[in-house]
Amino acid sequence: MNGRETQTKETETGLAPVPANFAPLTPLSFLPRTAEVYPGRTAVVHGATRRTWAETYARCRRFASALRQRGIGKGDTVAVMAPNTPPMFEAHFGVPMAGAVLNALNVRLDAETIGFILNHGEAKVLITDTAFAAVIEPTLAQAGREILVIDIEDPEAAGEDRERLGEIDYEDFLAAGDPEFAWAPPDDEWQAIALNYTSGTTGDPKGVVYHHRGAYLNALGNIQVWEIAPHPVYLWTLPMFHCNGWCFPWTVTAMAGTHVCLRKADAKGIYDAFADQGVTHLCGAPIVMQTLLAAADAERRPFDQKVRMMTAAAPPPAAVLAAIEEAGIEVTHVYGLTEVYGPAVVCAWQREWSDLPIERQADIKARQGVNYPVLEGLMVADPETLAPVPRDGETLGEVFMRGNIVMKGYLKNSTTTEAALRGGWFHTGDLGVWHPDGYIELKDRSKDIIISGGENISSIEIEGVLYRHPAVAAVAVVAKPDEKWGETPCAFIELKPGTAATEGEIVAFCRDNMARFKAPRHVVFGPLPKTSTGKIQKYVLREKATES
Amino acid sequence: MNGRETQTKETETGLAPVPANFAPLTPLSFLPRTAEVYPGRTAVVHGATRRTWAETYARCRRFASALRQRGIGKGDTVAVMAPNTPPMFEAHFGVPMAGAVLNALNVRLDAETIGFILNHGEAKVLITDTAFAAVIEPTLAQAGREILVIDIEDPEAAGEDRERLGEIDYEDFLAAGDPEFAWAPPDDEWQAIALNYTSGTTGDPKGVVYHHRGAYLNALGNIQVWEIAPHPVYLWTLPMFHCNGWCFPWTVTAMAGTHVCLRKADAKGIYDAFADQGVTHLCGAPIVMQTLLAAADAERRPFDQKVRMMTAAAPPPAAVLAAIEEAGIEVTHVYGLTEVYGPAVVCAWQREWSDLPIERQADIKARQGVNYPVLEGLMVADPETLAPVPRDGETLGEVFMRGNIVMKGYLKNSTTTEAALRGGWFHTGDLGVWHPDGYIELKDRSKDIIISGGENISSIEIEGVLYRHPAVAAVAVVAKPDEKWGETPCAFIELKPGTAATEGEIVAFCRDNMARFKAPRHVVFGPLPKTSTGKIQKYVLREKATES
Repeated sequence: MNGRETQTKETETGLAPVPANFAPLTPLSFLPRTAEVYPGRTAVVHGATRRTWAETYARCRRFASALRQRGIGKGDTVAVMAPNTPPMFEAHFGVPMAGAVLNALNVRLDAETIGFILNHGEAKVLITDTAFAAVIEPTLAQAGREILVIDIEDPEAAGEDRERLGEIDYEDFLAAGDPEFAWAPPDDEWQAIALNYTSGTTGDPKGVVYHHRGAYLNALGNIQVWEIAPHPVYLWTLPMFHCNGWCFPWTVTAMAGTHVCLRKADAKGIYDAFADQGVTHLCGAPIVMQTLLAAADAERRPFDQKVRMMTAAAPPPAAVLAAIEEAGIEVTHVYGLTEVYGPAVVCAWQREWSDLPIERQADIKARQGVNYPVLEGLMVADPETLAPVPRDGETLGEVFMRGNIVMKGYLKNSTTTEAALRGGWFHTGDLGVWHPDGYIELKDRSKDIIISGGENISSIEIEGVLYRHPAVAAVAVVAKPDEKWGETPCAFIELKPGTAATEGEIVAFCRDNMARFKAPRHVVFGPLPKTSTGKIQKYVLREKATES
Repeated sequence: MNGRETQTKETETGLAPVPANFAPLTPLSFLPRTAEVYPGRTAVVHGATRRTWAETYARCRRFASALRQRGIGKGDTVAVMAPNTPPMFEAHFGVPMAGAVLNALNVRLDAETIGFILNHGEAKVLITDTAFAAVIEPTLAQAGREILVIDIEDPEAAGEDRERLGEIDYEDFLAAGDPEFAWAPPDDEWQAIALNYTSGTTGDPKGVVYHHRGAYLNALGNIQVWEIAPHPVYLWTLPMFHCNGWCFPWTVTAMAGTHVCLRKADAKGIYDAFADQGVTHLCGAPIVMQTLLAAADAERRPFDQKVRMMTAAAPPPAAVLAAIEEAGIEVTHVYGLTEVYGPAVVCAWQREWSDLPIERQADIKARQGVNYPVLEGLMVADPETLAPVPRDGETLGEVFMRGNIVMKGYLKNSTTTEAALRGGWFHTGDLGVWHPDGYIELKDRSKDIIISGGENISSIEIEGVLYRHPAVAAVAVVAKPDEKWGETPCAFIELKPGTAATEGEIVAFCRDNMARFKAPRHVVFGPLPKTSTGKIQKYVLREKATES
């Protein structure tokens, strides 16, 4: 007998997984552990409501148990229409603890889109905050099949228009469940945990399916790239319906932190949470920073602790980054998409950069950066051949990602799934460059690029310049069709209160601060249309620019 | 067509893993990522030697490449006999990057045991520090098969007795490798990454097999339970041959920290590293604390930073804990075994405990604690029925663990593997109680283990040696509490009629027949207390040893 073969057999195949040494990875495992070890620590704060981890775990077990009593189980979709309130947080555990799949709905969507999502995802249960009755009611009439509707009556929603639509209230629903319910983790870590619809630039929204393994790993990835000591106090400014709050319902639970809920992310609410709850961490689009910086004196509150903020969705303008750091908030810039569980790329900070002038730091921080450790691959490459572009900071290519935090795929859309994952990489559709130091920088989303007289112009670059203008509060630049040049940049600008500027001044400012050919040819003043997550709705502006 | 079935099919089985969204978990993935993102940061410090992450990654690729040139690949064992020097660290990446399995040898073992391990593990390569030639040489003579021997000539070993045994020097071996070697991660995360021999209480040492998945998860588990911000400066006081340095070669690499090597963990070396390298983290048995506290003034150096230390093996006495924390070192107590990749249980600190008197804090911190988040299950239960004991802090039971950081099993020992993993739990063999707050506390090791200076010593092994002494009629070895070492072996001996022996003779006999550190420090002659059935009453002797 050959000794080598014996050993290979035993180390590699003879020692197969058994229940003692294998468990499917799932972020659900964080909850019982935190509830066991820190039963008395505060898990959730929402206005006057405070609940411990023991209470929260019992509520999630009731949640799962009550779903099972209604026949909900493995693979069933449970939709939730709610802002960042305790029920939305509890759904991140209660729904998958029943074996079901959480479909968190974007509360700013219209009835038609919500109706599409409920039908496409085949939701069997809809848990909906009574403030959204006007949008939800018509979708239920259209559904043409039975959906269990559960109303959330949030005590913090006083003053909002509310109406009950469902057969039972969320608290009554929970009360029927068993606080000791013996839920089971998934049999397979590849099992679906969540379904998140992308806003979709063309056609219908696409349903992105997450699995337990990916959610577990991205929850830990957040810990690796961000300074999160045990017991963070996390403020819910980022909507949980956006990539499951980038997996932070699970991350903060793993670290036995406190979830500070916030129905509405306004300046007063955020500053109050900083001062009263000792918030240490929050996430959000750059609009959250702008909200804080534009706050009236009466809304501001002093706070002592260091606050860390992760921001994504669009490269934060340099001027905004500089101002927010001066206000005592350390910003980490991340980048991702719904298809990769939220952030998968981080502008990892090099300590020596802290010695640079703040404007230079802001420029560096505006780059998207490098892969999360849990994302096994990141590259900028030719969209067709997948050949990496040179790391010269100039050659434009498409951003590609691969690894365990890439989605399972799109629900009921195998053609699009295969296209998105072809060649062993996830095709982000975003364009960028690769710098010599390995950091990627988005130069434009592919749909936003402005091609003028054969030259590529980055709308983001123009926006970066305009954010340095003293009168500019917010800006978006899009392509405007032009007979002569093909396209020209058109800037939409929201001015700060009490300031003024003319088109001529704005164009001159751009010409003084960047290559002249890149300066916008048209400037439109007025409020900018934004999505619920603070992203400026460029497609609306593109239509305006085309029409005008 | 039934809509439900369609959905289940697509979310659960239709979206199968593809290369874009699945990668085997492996701690090897941390190295290229850290080397890419922080190429210029210091990775390794050893005396006058400093290497960056770019250099370290290139050396590990050379290492893997050089092994492959010699025909070493998947499943082959590569043994390393070295203290905490750069080659030992590099082996944690270079060996598995070649697909091979790292077998780090305990440098304190005797030639006979080392010889057994090399043969049982079928090592094809032995990389050995020239200071251990006296132990290694006889093992090679016995091996009876070809082993590639590579010598490490450590420049920091000046003054030690050294001798070359191998055909090539480690640096020359690396030089032959390709610094751009295109290594591949394992095909399967269940593939073996390391082989670690337990000291074994009865019979031969057992070879514990680790897989990539478990090593990855425990490396991240260390980050979850300990405050490790990016870029820790980690001092290598804990031997890397103990459970792969409890997975910290991988943890510190994941966090892009600095590995500060240390050939010998003496007070001067540690204080110098604190002062000169800015060490932030270290691990080790309580003996390391006692070494620091007992240091002469000339060996001490002041340091400004906060230092965090993880300790295992035996809880530090209150006085030691108080003194070490006063010296600026925050202690975290963990517990584990070779079979669970090192620590799997942590005395997770509750903030309110910090307000208690230091003696009370020490009592609390002496408990082993709760499961790491990456260990899915921990309980104290009846050894036969596996029924959990009441959480009363009094009822004795065996400690059981389950989850992804439980070993694959014992090499070539399926009977023992099955016994150790039967019933869905790993049987630790350690006895303890379960407190009402869920923290476990070890009350005794059921297998007669003595933990001296962080090393496990089997009382049964010593007894086995002593029974070979011509004058010994009966012998029992128990642990005697010791301020410096935690515990030391104490031998109770009944002599044969008409014979005589002295304490010095007995100790010398042991030193000649086993690893020196295992020899008893105290010998007591006299009749042994026995039960009616003739069993030696060890608990009586334990009391005597404690009192004397």
